[in-house]
Amino acid sequence: MSRIGRLLETLAPIGRNEQGGYDRLAWTDADAGMRRWFLAEAASLGLETEVDRNGNLWAHWRRQPGGGLVVGSHLDSVPNGGALDGPLGVASAFAAIRSLKEAGETPASNVAVVAFVDEEGGRFGIACLGSRLMTGALDPDRARALTDREGVRLDDAMRAAGLDPDGLGPDPVRVASITAAVELHVEQGHLPIDGSDAAGLTAADAPLGVLTGIWPHGRWRIDVVGQADHAGTTPMADRDDPVVGAAAVVLAAREAAILEGALATVGRVEVEPGAVNAIAARASLWLDVRGADEGRIRRVVDRIAAAAGVDPVQESWTASMRFARSETRRIAAAVREVTGSEAPALPSGAGHDAGVLQAAGVAAAMLAVRNPTGVSHAPGESADLADIEVGVAVLARLLAGFPASGTATA
Amino acid sequence: MSRIGRLLETLAPIGRNEQGGYDRLAWTDADAGMRRWFLAEAASLGLETEVDRNGNLWAHWRRQPGGGLVVGSHLDSVPNGGALDGPLGVASAFAAIRSLKEAGETPASNVAVVAFVDEEGGRFGIACLGSRLMTGALDPDRARALTDREGVRLDDAMRAAGLDPDGLGPDPVRVASITAAVELHVEQGHLPIDGSDAAGLTAADAPLGVLTGIWPHGRWRIDVVGQADHAGTTPMADRDDPVVGAAAVVLAAREAAILEGALATVGRVEVEPGAVNAIAARASLWLDVRGADEGRIRRVVDRIAAAAGVDPVQESWTASMRFARSETRRIAAAVREVTGSEAPALPSGAGHDAGVLQAAGVAAAMLAVRNPTGVSHAPGESADLADIEVGVAVLARLLAGFPASGTATA
Repeated sequence: MSRIGRLLETLAPIGRNEQGGYDRLAWTDADAGMRRWFLAEAASLGLETEVDRNGNLWAHWRRQPGGGLVVGSHLDSVPNGGALDGPLGVASAFAAIRSLKEAGETPASNVAVVAFVDEEGGRFGIACLGSRLMTGALDPDRARALTDREGVRLDDAMRAAGLDPDGLGPDPVRVASITAAVELHVEQGHLPIDGSDAAGLTAADAPLGVLTGIWPHGRWRIDVVGQADHAGTTPMADRDDPVVGAAAVVLAAREAAILEGALATVGRVEVEPGAVNAIAARASLWLDVRGADEGRIRRVVDRIAAAAGVDPVQESWTASMRFARSETRRIAAAVREVTGSEAPALPSGAGHDAGVLQAAGVAAAMLAVRNPTGVSHAPGESADLADIEVGVAVLARLLAGFPASGTATA
Repeated sequence: MSRIGRLLETLAPIGRNEQGGYDRLAWTDADAGMRRWFLAEAASLGLETEVDRNGNLWAHWRRQPGGGLVVGSHLDSVPNGGALDGPLGVASAFAAIRSLKEAGETPASNVAVVAFVDEEGGRFGIACLGSRLMTGALDPDRARALTDREGVRLDDAMRAAGLDPDGLGPDPVRVASITAAVELHVEQGHLPIDGSDAAGLTAADAPLGVLTGIWPHGRWRIDVVGQADHAGTTPMADRDDPVVGAAAVVLAAREAAILEGALATVGRVEVEPGAVNAIAARASLWLDVRGADEGRIRRVVDRIAAAAGVDPVQESWTASMRFARSETRRIAAAVREVTGSEAPALPSGAGHDAGVLQAAGVAAAMLAVRNPTGVSHAPGESADLADIEVGVAVLARLLAGFPASGTATA
């Protein structure tokens, strides 16, 4: 088995659940296991490791004055997520460095591997927590006070994991030292290839793709308030049942997304008090809407509000983001050198730490590895080892060829 | 304020929550407070108290060989329930006994007040737990192994409350000693009055009603299994979203109930894994269906299965039940004597311990106190004190006039 295949095998048992999925939420035991793995792998490569003030992990190859290239991703997962979303980017970075070291190659630039903490927001509800804190996009007081579903505060969870939450906050010197960032990631969904009728890398017959940017994305909470009453004694005509109202919201969301060519998802539902023999008092839904532009997302939410008579409250908004043309060109060139073919360009429907970095002025870009099913955030997430190996080879070429500090082309 | 008014005031703080509702689930601190209240009130009346092997509370006035009349109800509530469902029947029984004692009247028969444990099933999912265990309708091994939402077993909850779960089980000698049982209860909903166009006691302009029987009632669990996937990357056309399937079930249930003239409720919903940024893997719904006859309930479930393409799994079934004509006649006569008017007869859409006793061969019946809103199992549950006082007077007349052991008319 290849180097990257063996490396991924060492991760396979960590946080694996009975359904074959992964529960690696931030600051849990499984997350701690992933973090120990990072430090051990970095040490075995002779890299200098560091935990920054926000809990992000760094492994430095060269660390001279001036900027450098950062490669990596994150190690946490959504609840019952897949094996690759996050860890593939980190493991591929280590594998690329090992191949360069074994070949006796040394990069001209500083190089670091990063694992950003709590990218998924699966526990505390805010995605890209580590990169947002580092770039100043998230207030550290707000972050410390976040609570998970059991009511555990983020600062207490960090303390329990042996870290100091008082240190959370912007890290501008570190951000300024990142000339460029490249995140390798498993393909998610089969999104339309730029300038082609194909949807996804499988249809395009390509092992790798270059992500051009991230779709805009919003989250809303919708509370449907009804009248709690007895299930056995309240005539249907007299009911104000919030579960019925919530069902109408779910169906309206699907219809609106289809009409607008966007994506709308209700993935979390809470019904109170939740007795089997009582009409509920309240149903709360969390609505996630994404699409190629902001206009169609706003129209989806307006349609839902009108059709279901509800008042969605926006909980987050992430504007559309375009990756650095300098770095997408550099990735495309590396793919051409390794495979002899052009890498298809396609958007990302998901948010990523690379997007947070790009929004903070870092030249960031992403490389996608073909996912035959398109499934992600679920146990079925997959990629062929052969495709992953091509991705590692491209990363190695990027590291080896990245110009010495200060000479990155704009 | 009247005797019963003051007595209800002593209960008002126990288990009251911030929304003005009551959380008095079985074997919780609030439930223990209600049980202490029962023992104290019985002691102040000079009644002999007893906790039976199933945790049901008894207060005996006379206890001679032979049968007797049992009056009472239960003290637990659904989550965020009302003040009266249960406790009104127990407090009214104590108030009736106090009025007889103060008037120097002694019944010809044995008399006992009962508070059955865990009538609502709000914690462990099985309603009328105490009366079902006593009559042998529920297997004690099954009861001990029931778990609440936090995974606490019923036997552990009993032990924590200072009771011995090893004693749970049938109590045939006790059941045989109950000649008749009368449960006074707040009206629930506005169900059709027999032989009238009026719905509910308010429309019938009557403070009290006689319940003729209990509608049949079933509970089903419906699991909608889908394909977990990423919310930002999975095209709408490629989704198998169980939350959308569950929404269709909820709307189909409402339509089917209306078409069949029955009641259908989804009061509990669970979505797994419940991440805000992922299409769920599974949605589970609990469906409660009731109606005047079994045929229309079965048709409701068949319609839901056909319309939503799901396979409901029956979790419980309670057949229709008619109360003892001897006792409904006796209650009607007492109402006539106290008020000078006929008490309307109407069905119950809810299950009750009196129904469990009737099914076990006890002559049981129920007296309903007018509820202006009809709301029950919710903070809005209410009854006018004047109507409650009429109910107490009727109970006192029933106790005073109940024939000595062995002479109850069939």
